[in-house]
Amino acid sequence: MARHPALESDAPLARAAPRRRLAVDDRRRELLGACLELIGTRPWDEVSMADVASAAGASKPLLYHYFPTKSDLYLAAVRAAADELRAATTPAGDLPPRLALQRGLTAHVDWVDANADAYRAVLQGGLSSDPRVHAIIEESRADVVARLAHGFGLQRVTPAQRTVLRGWVGFLEGACLDWVQRRDVPKSRLVRILAASVAALAPVARA
Amino acid sequence: MARHPALESDAPLARAAPRRRLAVDDRRRELLGACLELIGTRPWDEVSMADVASAAGASKPLLYHYFPTKSDLYLAAVRAAADELRAATTPAGDLPPRLALQRGLTAHVDWVDANADAYRAVLQGGLSSDPRVHAIIEESRADVVARLAHGFGLQRVTPAQRTVLRGWVGFLEGACLDWVQRRDVPKSRLVRILAASVAALAPVARA
Repeated sequence: MARHPALESDAPLARAAPRRRLAVDDRRRELLGACLELIGTRPWDEVSMADVASAAGASKPLLYHYFPTKSDLYLAAVRAAADELRAATTPAGDLPPRLALQRGLTAHVDWVDANADAYRAVLQGGLSSDPRVHAIIEESRADVVARLAHGFGLQRVTPAQRTVLRGWVGFLEGACLDWVQRRDVPKSRLVRILAASVAALAPVARA
Repeated sequence: MARHPALESDAPLARAAPRRRLAVDDRRRELLGACLELIGTRPWDEVSMADVASAAGASKPLLYHYFPTKSDLYLAAVRAAADELRAATTPAGDLPPRLALQRGLTAHVDWVDANADAYRAVLQGGLSSDPRVHAIIEESRADVVARLAHGFGLQRVTPAQRTVLRGWVGFLEGACLDWVQRRDVPKSRLVRILAASVAALAPVARA
């Protein structure tokens, strides 16, 4: 049986995304978004710069203009994702602590929900072995530890307290990774579990 | 300046480990031990079969006899490590629950202490992106979840309860990874933190 000629051509993968002119920042953001989406869907070794350009509806030279190497690209994508997650989960300053925590956890789970593949790939995939990616992940974790310490009213964090707080970051990641894999718990229930785990561990951190 | 001829030869790296005849099981165990040690010290891509043979004081053909490919070797090493950790942390059946937990956590931390580099490499390194390695890690986590559920007296584990238990496995990993990196908390204190976190989360898991 003859195959349709289009299937045998070297046409870009994503015909659906036409090339458009965008402001520099928007274009950069779009390229990073396309990269982050592809990071999650298959092993990063198998993703080419052409794939990313195509998925973003951009030309390959334009992608190389912004990101000279594939490693520049994924590092920027992971950095952008970490910044986005941080911004999304930063509570407004004037909320009572319990409500701030609730909002922050809801935003965290929403972000994980919307970026599930990338979340798994960055935390569990081969990328995590790149020391620069690892450094970004560790920075994000330290940021959550610092916020939690603040929420717990700890002025100075002892090594033992930091161990508890870093442990809770592991709880957050473990529960979220389990959730994106199975999705057999309602999102609101996951948020309640996370909030309950913070409350339960607060006395351990303060001890 | 002339270099010593021996420095320019293709001599094996580890002269210090002489080749010896061992029983099949012992020999296999030694090869896996050497592999696990090397997994932790540098990126796995940079480790050759010759390095592993040399570190174990074995010949390369012998190593290939046991493990036809490098991927057979590291999979077997990760599997052996998971089995060893499980065996080390399996409590004797007749202990009261609190003491069994205490003993299990102590054995866990002792194992992490003795295999710190490999622990970090397997959980955070490039190996974790291999689906077969990932499957072994997930199996170990599921085993800890099952033991915890048993310890909590849960007959049937609901998805929400599993999320809490899986979250605690993340707590365990997060706290242990933090500890092997900094070692600024006494080992006995880490064990107490882990035990306290289990006790604190028990009501959340039973809810």
